[in-house]
Amino acid sequence: MRRKEFEVKERQLIEEVLNKVSVGYLSFNGADGWPRITPLNFVYEDGWIYWHGAVAGERFHCLQQDSRAVFAAVLIPLYIPSYFAAEDNATAATSTFKSVIVRGRVSSFIDLDEKCKVLNKLMAKYQPEGRYRKITPHDPFYAKILPATGVYGLRVEEMVGKFKFAQNKSVEDRKKIINRLKERGEATDLIVAEEIEKTLAEIKS
Amino acid sequence: MRRKEFEVKERQLIEEVLNKVSVGYLSFNGADGWPRITPLNFVYEDGWIYWHGAVAGERFHCLQQDSRAVFAAVLIPLYIPSYFAAEDNATAATSTFKSVIVRGRVSSFIDLDEKCKVLNKLMAKYQPEGRYRKITPHDPFYAKILPATGVYGLRVEEMVGKFKFAQNKSVEDRKKIINRLKERGEATDLIVAEEIEKTLAEIKS
Repeated sequence: MRRKEFEVKERQLIEEVLNKVSVGYLSFNGADGWPRITPLNFVYEDGWIYWHGAVAGERFHCLQQDSRAVFAAVLIPLYIPSYFAAEDNATAATSTFKSVIVRGRVSSFIDLDEKCKVLNKLMAKYQPEGRYRKITPHDPFYAKILPATGVYGLRVEEMVGKFKFAQNKSVEDRKKIINRLKERGEATDLIVAEEIEKTLAEIKS
Repeated sequence: MRRKEFEVKERQLIEEVLNKVSVGYLSFNGADGWPRITPLNFVYEDGWIYWHGAVAGERFHCLQQDSRAVFAAVLIPLYIPSYFAAEDNATAATSTFKSVIVRGRVSSFIDLDEKCKVLNKLMAKYQPEGRYRKITPHDPFYAKILPATGVYGLRVEEMVGKFKFAQNKSVEDRKKIINRLKERGEATDLIVAEEIEKTLAEIKS
């Protein structure tokens, strides 16, 4: 990362982003030399990013050829209008977010019990309220579809967190932005105001 | 695209997604053979995706070496719980979204007037309410920062739209999902219910 003031090193803070984001983006190499990108529902656990998909198609074939991939997840992105910090000057505009970029190699799971384990993790993330029968290899609901379901995992080799909450702005400008966000008062505004306040507390401590 | 029922060919529908999404994801080749990915604020116009960034750092250097890139934007992603369509059976879970994947080569703009044109397009998208002085090369607010601001454009060579709104489900299941979404009634639920209704209208017509 070029701008070190945005870098986050605490693994817990990075993992929190991966746990909260519902759509991530996977990038990998195509056989024609062009990169590929695909949005994914995913679940993160213990250094792995898991998803399911087809055992066919372009993504499947590209990853069979070259398992190297990167993955991005972004939480609470917000555009901050220039006039929150300055009159007339467009360069005062900024954006805030928590982002995580992961790099690693992708595996395809074949073992039915392993597949079920991953699929149940996905269900637990997206449907925490339950109301489904747990996925097991011999359940008549699932037995037929399981072999045809591709289950994939990216094992994290490198993970970089970037939290951008106006750290590159003066204390005065950050305070102005915080006030304007609180005035506007939408749910994301208040979350972002709190994150910018944390950056001020860090200066003081 | 493997599943043709999700493909969207109308350019207008695809462009609408690019106009509405506020964070896109750019993927490109790294010199080490690994792909790279980065979230971006961007603006789409007339077959170009534009953004600004540093004239330094990894992204800048990778794209100087190899200008091939892909770009993804996703609108209204929504997880549909399995019990909206079926009792107990987890495989009834699905997700809906409008996605666009773009492929093309990236250019770096150097001419100050061209840079200003792009930066004003970005401002017009993210700050439609105005309240800033238009960016011009000789304005004292902008003259110093402009040469140091990287302004980039991906020229669209290929653009693929995928709208997934339960087209792979039976008519009966789609109707169940529509009813449950309307019951729950959050803003995105109602938009998604309407999109699923469009898929039913297409069957009839």
